[in-house]
Amino acid sequence: MQEIKPIQVAQFGLGPIGLESLKLAATKSWLEVIGGVDLAADKVGRDLADLTGEPALRGRRVFETLAALLAVGKPDVVLHTSVSKFAAAALQLEPIIRLGISVVSSCEELVCPAFRDAALAARLDALCQQHGARVFGTGVNPGFVMDVLPVVLSGVSRTVHRISVQRVVNASTRRGPLQRKIGSGWSPAEFERRFSEGEAGHAGLKDSIALIAHGLGWSLDGITETGRAMVAERDIRTDHVEVRQGQCCGLHQLGIGTRAGESVITLEIKMYLDAPNPHDAIQLEGEPPLRVLIEGGVAGDQATVAALVNAIPRVLKARPGLLLATDIALPCFV
Amino acid sequence: MQEIKPIQVAQFGLGPIGLESLKLAATKSWLEVIGGVDLAADKVGRDLADLTGEPALRGRRVFETLAALLAVGKPDVVLHTSVSKFAAAALQLEPIIRLGISVVSSCEELVCPAFRDAALAARLDALCQQHGARVFGTGVNPGFVMDVLPVVLSGVSRTVHRISVQRVVNASTRRGPLQRKIGSGWSPAEFERRFSEGEAGHAGLKDSIALIAHGLGWSLDGITETGRAMVAERDIRTDHVEVRQGQCCGLHQLGIGTRAGESVITLEIKMYLDAPNPHDAIQLEGEPPLRVLIEGGVAGDQATVAALVNAIPRVLKARPGLLLATDIALPCFV
Repeated sequence: MQEIKPIQVAQFGLGPIGLESLKLAATKSWLEVIGGVDLAADKVGRDLADLTGEPALRGRRVFETLAALLAVGKPDVVLHTSVSKFAAAALQLEPIIRLGISVVSSCEELVCPAFRDAALAARLDALCQQHGARVFGTGVNPGFVMDVLPVVLSGVSRTVHRISVQRVVNASTRRGPLQRKIGSGWSPAEFERRFSEGEAGHAGLKDSIALIAHGLGWSLDGITETGRAMVAERDIRTDHVEVRQGQCCGLHQLGIGTRAGESVITLEIKMYLDAPNPHDAIQLEGEPPLRVLIEGGVAGDQATVAALVNAIPRVLKARPGLLLATDIALPCFV
Repeated sequence: MQEIKPIQVAQFGLGPIGLESLKLAATKSWLEVIGGVDLAADKVGRDLADLTGEPALRGRRVFETLAALLAVGKPDVVLHTSVSKFAAAALQLEPIIRLGISVVSSCEELVCPAFRDAALAARLDALCQQHGARVFGTGVNPGFVMDVLPVVLSGVSRTVHRISVQRVVNASTRRGPLQRKIGSGWSPAEFERRFSEGEAGHAGLKDSIALIAHGLGWSLDGITETGRAMVAERDIRTDHVEVRQGQCCGLHQLGIGTRAGESVITLEIKMYLDAPNPHDAIQLEGEPPLRVLIEGGVAGDQATVAALVNAIPRVLKARPGLLLATDIALPCFV
């Protein structure tokens, strides 16, 4: 009989995704949750079983800092679900890395951090190697549907000229914060203003393009992104929001990567209330041509926490460093 | 300016797949073909440019053995495209491994060799580690559509209960040897007799099931496989074969993996002449449910050589050993 000690995990960030990650982690016999970290005054000191409704987490508490959590044990890995920006994540991750603790993060800009800040990425990579830590950003989008999956499909390509992905999400089936983040109930002009200021919209489209280009070794001229409002054709009411005809009911974002003057990567996402026919579609133009359809699309929230938790064993097996999906073993349910 | 020496490659086996691999390898600036190995008297000594019609290969010759080829240089990697059985491949690979040379192989039983012979797989793995060589079996099927792709999709699954894949191939669009291998023109009874004797049919269905189960950590009760003839409803003539109504025009194979008495992996392949609506379809039952359709299917021959050549860089970066798709970085066009 082989006895394997479960991987010790701490949850950093106890928002909706963090709590869902904890619930999933609690079901895995190969994982042991030792505690959570969150600054929020209404969470510090609380029991994770009460916060998640998951009895298996009874006795695991929320600490204000990782340093405080160390009193109950040193995790092998931190599930990091708190911010979208690489720069903000780096500030939180540096002390974790210095402890030699690895990180799996939902931070959108960590799927291809060198695209956002090459110098910072190189510095964190060196720090990881120095301390024997691994840092990996993943999720469903970015992190899977619009980047990893097209890259995997290119593995059977003799040639690839162009990659396109379309993702249509029915936001009515998603959580409240997301329904608000896509601009439900704003005027279309307000959505577009906030989008241009980086305060609304889907995070990670450019990062997906950068990851595809990195995987295929394509040196891009640049990456552009536009965001427009989807306008409600009739009044819409969900459990979380109310939208009148003519108001914004979601977003239509288009990201384009160009190479030698040509659009070679085109990612398009429509995420809006009551969207009919949600799906993901991937096309690789090349030899052979590939046309892939995911009926209904990959469900965002459920699949995101699955991507995080499933990544843990293969991240821990990889070499230390700031890792990309193309550096580690392929995604797999664990 | 960075000068990188191209990866030196030798082609072992100069059948149709081997020649196609060479043609693709000749287009890659990061690869340099140094020669070929084949026992056939009508190939030994010939120029690869003449055999493939690819002028870039002029001056590269066919040797009767790898030992003879070493006179022109030691390859970093051998593309091995000669046999379907693990035991036969192992005999050819052992001397290559002992030279510390890595191998990417189209041998169907190498996608999950421990399923065929666990002791032999362990011995080869140890030999690889001893000599710093990597051996990896890949292709489109087995090696991608019916195994690697479902495993990758499971990476965003909270739970998976059952995996099914259906592949329908229009054999009229494929090469002559394949049209014959699927039994075109035989009586249905003859196909079924030859299938049961292991002399006809698609190789690798059980191996795909074993690879999925390995990836997901599922311990199977067993794997069963059945093969039936597809019967021509009218006379069919292709460039390579002639089939009369009532004769066999292809195959219908079904592989099932059971776990705790339940069918948890079901792979079904129909490969026959004039098959309408060729496609690959993958379903994961679980949370979230996933239904993926590849319109037209992944073209077998073109994509198989792409899978082989694209695997080279990530195999050379992996740790020495007898490697599975779940051990190395994810598939990617290079």
